[in-house]
Amino acid sequence: MTTATTQDGSLPHSTENKPAPETSQQMKAVRFHGKEDLRFEDIQEPKCGAGQIKVVPAWCGICGSDLHEFIGGPSLCPTTPHPITGETVPLTFGHEFSGIIEELGEGVAEKWKVGDRVVVQPIIYDGDCGACQDGLINCCYNNGFVGLSGWGGGLSEHVVVPEYAVYQLPDNVGLDVAALVEPLAVGWHAVNISPFKITDSVLILGGGPIGLAVIQALRARGCNKIIVSEISSMRKQYAKDFGAHHVIDPTKDDIVAKVRELCDGTGVHVAFDCAGVQPGMDQAVLAIRARGTLVNIAIWEKTATFTPNDFNFKERGYLGVATYVKGDFEEVINAISDGRLDNAHKMITKRIELDQVLEEGFRTLINDKDNQVKILVKGSSEK
Amino acid sequence: MTTATTQDGSLPHSTENKPAPETSQQMKAVRFHGKEDLRFEDIQEPKCGAGQIKVVPAWCGICGSDLHEFIGGPSLCPTTPHPITGETVPLTFGHEFSGIIEELGEGVAEKWKVGDRVVVQPIIYDGDCGACQDGLINCCYNNGFVGLSGWGGGLSEHVVVPEYAVYQLPDNVGLDVAALVEPLAVGWHAVNISPFKITDSVLILGGGPIGLAVIQALRARGCNKIIVSEISSMRKQYAKDFGAHHVIDPTKDDIVAKVRELCDGTGVHVAFDCAGVQPGMDQAVLAIRARGTLVNIAIWEKTATFTPNDFNFKERGYLGVATYVKGDFEEVINAISDGRLDNAHKMITKRIELDQVLEEGFRTLINDKDNQVKILVKGSSEK
Ligand SMILES: [Zn+2]
Ligand SMILES: [Zn+2]
Repeated sequence: MTTATTQDGSLPHSTENKPAPETSQQMKAVRFHGKEDLRFEDIQEPKCGAGQIKVVPAWCGICGSDLHEFIGGPSLCPTTPHPITGETVPLTFGHEFSGIIEELGEGVAEKWKVGDRVVVQPIIYDGDCGACQDGLINCCYNNGFVGLSGWGGGLSEHVVVPEYAVYQLPDNVGLDVAALVEPLAVGWHAVNISPFKITDSVLILGGGPIGLAVIQALRARGCNKIIVSEISSMRKQYAKDFGAHHVIDPTKDDIVAKVRELCDGTGVHVAFDCAGVQPGMDQAVLAIRARGTLVNIAIWEKTATFTPNDFNFKERGYLGVATYVKGDFEEVINAISDGRLDNAHKMITKRIELDQVLEEGFRTLINDKDNQVKILVKGSSEK
Repeated sequence: MTTATTQDGSLPHSTENKPAPETSQQMKAVRFHGKEDLRFEDIQEPKCGAGQIKVVPAWCGICGSDLHEFIGGPSLCPTTPHPITGETVPLTFGHEFSGIIEELGEGVAEKWKVGDRVVVQPIIYDGDCGACQDGLINCCYNNGFVGLSGWGGGLSEHVVVPEYAVYQLPDNVGLDVAALVEPLAVGWHAVNISPFKITDSVLILGGGPIGLAVIQALRARGCNKIIVSEISSMRKQYAKDFGAHHVIDPTKDDIVAKVRELCDGTGVHVAFDCAGVQPGMDQAVLAIRARGTLVNIAIWEKTATFTPNDFNFKERGYLGVATYVKGDFEEVINAISDGRLDNAHKMITKRIELDQVLEEGFRTLINDKDNQVKILVKGSSEK
């Protein structure tokens, strides 16, 4: 299989979904062993197999789901062998990363060269299930992520991934900004599959990294009524900086009344829940106009409640979204390159070294959450 | 305003949303006074005002919402003055009815004639609110129904409605079948605004009147995989008679496994909830494939719970639907007339007189629910 056909939407051959063989060299990696147990340690360096590409990470972001695993996991990370990778914790972390190609496996497409600047789309999928057959690799019944489910991760000195996971970067997209493609793609995809149209008004719950990604995706499409609901004063400021037209505060404002007032008395067309808390959802439903849609991006810990009549009497809709599909990474890379996502670099609030990930990365995100958007970890290609 | 423009989607003039004046004559009507209190009594006959049409009811169906009011209401019926009709209980019941025009108010369109065979679309709306301005009269912030919120109802000897509520019947549509247009329009509308496409597979929860209306609407569009989940053996039979391809039983079958098995291991594209119970909804969510949608038509008594992750990880959607909008009545009338809804008459399981409504109508529907689909009440034009 060539990369061209893979990135056009064809599915992986079963032979491509295989673990990389190991070399006899050692390398450094940040590995998750279990709750509150993250270690900077020496592990076996992976070898590049057929159909695979070996990358030296350049920059790698720390994600909310990494934090979530660290604080309360393993939950996404497998404790029984993952159906595709066959791996369990301990696992190397890091699924938001750019890098430089250092080796090409047998049979990969001619277009790839050692030294190419790339970003990795980390979804692992089987290609066989009903969702994959519909092109929805993000909904794969066996899905996983490089950096969460096995096959190494961006928080190491070398990583080997299937060819289908690798995307070339244009010259004008820096390797640091490229590490933001993954979180930006989450917001971009959510807007893509939502019913949003350019003239629509939008409410966003939460001004964290995903909320900011949604703001940017909406601005890139020309949206001119973005209302963000957020409590933290620092995050309110970020929301404004990234282009929110109105920022409201659920501890001070009546969200439903305020949103309706800002939207000719009716409500927004689309709301994006990037917070995942019950009172926020309850307000968002009522702040949506007739036939409007609540798009949920947030990962909720458990069940939620809702009032079906509030959906029926106004014919409102709800839509769950999951990461991204083929096409989203290219669109985000192009939008950064052509300037539609020209604020993306502002998401980088701190840069650290690989051996600082626990203290300066995870602990900072836990203790100084409101001031941080993205902490990037410098990889060995940047040394 | 002419009827032509009204039925094209323009909004009512405030002068049209007015109560009919009263005459000095008395007439018979079935009125709802409160919980378990339905009376066959003499009331003032309404007079036909400007912009209004006076109709002698021919056939009127008894609806689940009428029963619901009778058993546990008033809930939809106003106990404080309705914002448009100004009325409160006691109110005349009957919102699924056909009839014969007996009088035309000043200024109604030339096309109407005394003696015309018609059906009444009972939605009452203000025309001013954000929903109405978007053409969603069914989502009107002040909405109501003839036969539930005032302006009389089909269970009486005469009823006066705004011109915009009246739809002409083709010669080949009987006045009895015409009384089914309203419930059929509920199912028709739900399919219309759902993402259903002709090649999709569908799950329907509940084989009551609305479930059967959805089956018919889907068959009229050529759907060839309709799975109905129902417990009652009589309703299972009805579901088959109206065209369900598979009928399954949640007390015997594992609904999720069975639906997936019937759909190549994946699940249905769309599910319609016409039952409104938590275990049914829980199963339906999991029986829907990735990017599929759960359409809720049922009126739930209270809140429901759901697991947001089940929506996110498969990018499933939820959509509440409410009655019908302009266009749906015409489409249903045309589909009955041209044979696409050629089973509609089979929904009529019993015919009774106006003075039998309590015992032979409501009590029968409560005690013999599973054997009845629609009980029609004969009006004075049929005497
Ligand atoms: Zn799959
Ligand atoms: Zn309205």
